[in-house]
Amino acid sequence: MPLWTIHHTPGIFTDEEKHDLAARITDHYEKVGLPRFYVVVLFDETKPTDFYVGGEPTPVGVRIVIDHIARHLPDKAARQRSTQWINGILQPHLSRHDGLHWEFHVDETSEDLWMINGLVPPPGRSEAEKAWARANAATAY
Amino acid sequence: MPLWTIHHTPGIFTDEEKHDLAARITDHYEKVGLPRFYVVVLFDETKPTDFYVGGEPTPVGVRIVIDHIARHLPDKAARQRSTQWINGILQPHLSRHDGLHWEFHVDETSEDLWMINGLVPPPGRSEAEKAWARANAATAY
Amino acid sequence: MPLWTIHHTPGIFTDEEKHDLAARITDHYEKVGLPRFYVVVLFDETKPTDFYVGGEPTPVGVRIVIDHIARHLPDKAARQRSTQWINGILQPHLSRHDGLHWEFHVDETSEDLWMINGLVPPPGRSEAEKAWARANAATAY
Repeated sequence: MPLWTIHHTPGIFTDEEKHDLAARITDHYEKVGLPRFYVVVLFDETKPTDFYVGGEPTPVGVRIVIDHIARHLPDKAARQRSTQWINGILQPHLSRHDGLHWEFHVDETSEDLWMINGLVPPPGRSEAEKAWARANAATAY
Repeated sequence: MPLWTIHHTPGIFTDEEKHDLAARITDHYEKVGLPRFYVVVLFDETKPTDFYVGGEPTPVGVRIVIDHIARHLPDKAARQRSTQWINGILQPHLSRHDGLHWEFHVDETSEDLWMINGLVPPPGRSEAEKAWARANAATAY
Repeated sequence: MPLWTIHHTPGIFTDEEKHDLAARITDHYEKVGLPRFYVVVLFDETKPTDFYVGGEPTPVGVRIVIDHIARHLPDKAARQRSTQWINGILQPHLSRHDGLHWEFHVDETSEDLWMINGLVPPPGRSEAEKAWARANAATAY
């Protein structure tokens, strides 16, 4: 469900750091009740001549697009809390790069327009969703 | 108009299978009245160390993001039907891969914020749109 | 804030043309008051066998996805004006390619779900935003 697409210039992440960041992102969603396999993180290395910030090619840039589907935030306060925890996950991974431009935004889309492995995921916080979380797999319900 | 972005790990599709899937997707939209050239399908091969499901690099994964612009779905029942036909197109192409995680979601955006070849596309179901569909090309109208 | 993702087949843009297009896009947003560094433009070269228009691989295609966050358009007339200026920027860069399919659409997402360099950007048109624009950098405010 949550899909994180992380566009980055070369040299920002080692493979180990990518794995670690993806795991930490997933840990968070698991804590709020989502099955771990709902969380997909894609890294997209983009060279400076394909990555412009302020109209100039950037040697160090990270631009993250997050799609949220299964859980929508009801109000501004909830959106601000969500933004802060995303920041809290990213900060330790990114703040040590000098001169880095890093930025993220979240889009929210309809849970009715979403399927995994040919199945409509169970309603949020339902017993079926909890069973998917325990099994960490999509099963008929 | 419909834009399908298909992120996939290596070895999921041959070039012939990509062509065939893109053609089947386009066939469907044509049946509901859209010009064939409205349909754009992009494949994005992503290696396992850039493709994480549940926090782990995945050897076999497909994550599809679909943008719908010219036609919005009026209610939950219509969204569910739409989700089912998308699943019906994908299932034969994907269900034969063992252990594959495959998932899609659809976003709906404003038809006012969209142009093709420098032209504002004609209103949905208008005579001008039908002419574009017959010509399979964008022409001044 | 505005994120332009430009998917294109090989040979459409030289590095110099990419730089020039990114700078012109950024100029426009600066004119309407945004800090230049808000504007990120990503180019994504995609080979014809990964880029299908109307179900066929295309030798010359450009598909642009634009995300707008900090400024939303209040009505249809404003959306149409926005669409026209985007077209005005792209036309000189793209209309000289014979047989090119080029298309763009814009998505609008919540400004509450957005951060740059660990900071919540200041409200649109605020004094703090003007200071960010003058400094062309994100600073605590």
